[in-house]
Amino acid sequence: MRRVMVKELNNYINEEVKIQGWIYRIRKLKEITFMILRDRTGLVQCVIDNKTIDMGNIKLESVVSIIGEVKENNNILNPFEISTKNFEILNEVKEELPIEINKKQLEINLDTMLNNRILSLRHEKINSIFKIQNLIIQGFREFLTKEGFTEIFTPKIVAEGAEGGTEIFEVKYFENKAYLAQSPQFYKQMMVGAGYERVFEIAHVYRAEQHNTNRHLNEYISMDFEMGFIENEEDVMNMEENLLKHVLNKIEKEGKEYLEILNIVIPKIENTIPRIKFSEAIEILRKEYNKTDIDGDLDPEGEKLICKYAKEKLGCEFIFLTHYPRKKRPMYTMPCGENETHSFDLLFRGIEITTGGQRIHEYDMLIDNIKYKGLNPEKYHNYTSVFKYGMPRHGGLAIGLERITMQILKLENVREASLIPRDRTRLTP
Amino acid sequence: MRRVMVKELNNYINEEVKIQGWIYRIRKLKEITFMILRDRTGLVQCVIDNKTIDMGNIKLESVVSIIGEVKENNNILNPFEISTKNFEILNEVKEELPIEINKKQLEINLDTMLNNRILSLRHEKINSIFKIQNLIIQGFREFLTKEGFTEIFTPKIVAEGAEGGTEIFEVKYFENKAYLAQSPQFYKQMMVGAGYERVFEIAHVYRAEQHNTNRHLNEYISMDFEMGFIENEEDVMNMEENLLKHVLNKIEKEGKEYLEILNIVIPKIENTIPRIKFSEAIEILRKEYNKTDIDGDLDPEGEKLICKYAKEKLGCEFIFLTHYPRKKRPMYTMPCGENETHSFDLLFRGIEITTGGQRIHEYDMLIDNIKYKGLNPEKYHNYTSVFKYGMPRHGGLAIGLERITMQILKLENVREASLIPRDRTRLTP
Repeated sequence: MRRVMVKELNNYINEEVKIQGWIYRIRKLKEITFMILRDRTGLVQCVIDNKTIDMGNIKLESVVSIIGEVKENNNILNPFEISTKNFEILNEVKEELPIEINKKQLEINLDTMLNNRILSLRHEKINSIFKIQNLIIQGFREFLTKEGFTEIFTPKIVAEGAEGGTEIFEVKYFENKAYLAQSPQFYKQMMVGAGYERVFEIAHVYRAEQHNTNRHLNEYISMDFEMGFIENEEDVMNMEENLLKHVLNKIEKEGKEYLEILNIVIPKIENTIPRIKFSEAIEILRKEYNKTDIDGDLDPEGEKLICKYAKEKLGCEFIFLTHYPRKKRPMYTMPCGENETHSFDLLFRGIEITTGGQRIHEYDMLIDNIKYKGLNPEKYHNYTSVFKYGMPRHGGLAIGLERITMQILKLENVREASLIPRDRTRLTP
Repeated sequence: MRRVMVKELNNYINEEVKIQGWIYRIRKLKEITFMILRDRTGLVQCVIDNKTIDMGNIKLESVVSIIGEVKENNNILNPFEISTKNFEILNEVKEELPIEINKKQLEINLDTMLNNRILSLRHEKINSIFKIQNLIIQGFREFLTKEGFTEIFTPKIVAEGAEGGTEIFEVKYFENKAYLAQSPQFYKQMMVGAGYERVFEIAHVYRAEQHNTNRHLNEYISMDFEMGFIENEEDVMNMEENLLKHVLNKIEKEGKEYLEILNIVIPKIENTIPRIKFSEAIEILRKEYNKTDIDGDLDPEGEKLICKYAKEKLGCEFIFLTHYPRKKRPMYTMPCGENETHSFDLLFRGIEITTGGQRIHEYDMLIDNIKYKGLNPEKYHNYTSVFKYGMPRHGGLAIGLERITMQILKLENVREASLIPRDRTRLTP
């Protein structure tokens, strides 16, 4: 007998079916027992006659298989229930569950949630986070594929970091030292030059951040794209704007049931996302909020305030800041005049979710800029040599998957948007 | 003026367009020059009047922008050509190219190809490999999403390897030692138990293989799926069979132009893939090919011979070998009797492209089997504890992306199916 999923049961009224899943709730009365079964598609109430079926003291979350008739019935879950004929235990829970997961709200702290990740993920509110995350990923891919981008997978074991700094994990690679990629930056640029012109990658990247914050992970999923034959960073921002519209629209359409569970309304982008220069943002922060301690990049408070400004004065929860100072941007960033760059960040609800910009495409300028940043061009030979053989103007960006998930779903901590997060102190489960 | 892609030019006959790309070939005659331009969608011939436009000694592979009229003309590439009005150099190649990439065949050895990867990828035969690889990935996702699978991303920095053995890379993780994941095995099983039931992941995995062979990479893309509520490994094999049919069909339909460039005909799976027990395979090798040196797993010669047998005697280029010996399979594999397991490999054209099977879902049996394999259950606590709280019967498999690409496209070396491969000695580019 083929298993029927809970979501399909409405097609089987008055028929006998087999359903399988986890025991979500049990309410034992004198004559009958109400049991709620959960499978990956939903919940259904099963009525069990205590005279014919002895459930014993079976624990919640045990895995069971049930054969019964689908009968019309108005209960809180569905317009039908299962009249149980046969009850089989597939895998019994023998120990007390370490956390209680069968309530509307999961009232545990973050550490307990992550320590018992497999159980906490069974809770519909937590489960739904990753269903929405799936839609973000699918929307990203769909949109870019339609726009002529090729999906790539590039190495995460690298000889040299792309982003500079010391926040890089070391790997013992046979006799050599290697590192975990901080970003696919060099490789996605190379793939533009390799003739694919437009590429994207969704893959793990690694940052050995020393500090634990609510917005940083040491391993996260970076959604990157890079595109050739652009005029400047405006083309990249335009692409992101349309990409985000597509993604948000997809979530709204296809993620309804999960959004309801999470009680989330998807933000709208009307027309375009406001774009202001970083230097203007500093002016605004000084004038409007009396904040004067910015040096080259916004701090968390600055990000919050400029988003507040964007929402209240410009009517958008997103804001592009452009023309970041040259001294704060990596060596591959296209300069704009002496002190600025053709780069941008996208901020959303108080946090940066994208960094992007136009890249340098000319060999000599790249070598000069590496030196300007106080780095040694020799070390980047494998990267720079590509620029000798015909690299088009290009630019791109990266969106942190967990960050954008966190911001769309108004989660308090980015760890909640990672199935199995890695941070400074967390290597398990 | 908006850039038009070469593939769209047939919609612009007698109109003026802007095209951009790389100079693929130049043939200078007395009065005119024929230049072929390549963009990501194809090649087009441009005719340049030497009197009005001086191209100088511009080198092949320089990046250029051309404005001209699309005129009907029968040449080897298209039923049209560009009558050039304006010629602009966007980024000039100033050095001699290290390899010659503008011939029908790229006549260089593998090392030279990989050392000059960005240039070699511009060759249509090499470029096409990754276009087909894209279709494999898309087909895998499409099919599984339709079948109710949820896409997951699980950690690649892990405290403990899943596959056992010493072939594992060490990472310096702050004060701790960690490792690079050999597979998402533990995590995909956990996600089945977390209520998603059916999950897949396409991501990097790492094997510190000491030896360099034509079929191994130290970093590769593993296409994994895992499914709950199965009867046994047969359900997993059935799923793979339908998955492969979908993928092969997709390549055939959507990859025509690339298959033609590569001169490849896609293999057909008529009805089902033959399934024979590993022990039978050993018998066949002994009887038919006088091969008697098998111990627990096939060697490369054995794999080739059994595939030869499958093709010649069973009429299929694929073959499932089932019931592998318990002593050779990892501790999570469901035993079948005392000496066999509910596991399988899929072999295709002489190489294993999939390992899969049913997994142990009961806590006590798992602990016993870990001991049976001579391992310490304490070390696997984070994994095994999940099995106490209601794990359904489940199984799954992994397909090596580069391997299946290599086999479908009849490449000689798996490195050819990796954009930027990593092996024992190759950490760059």
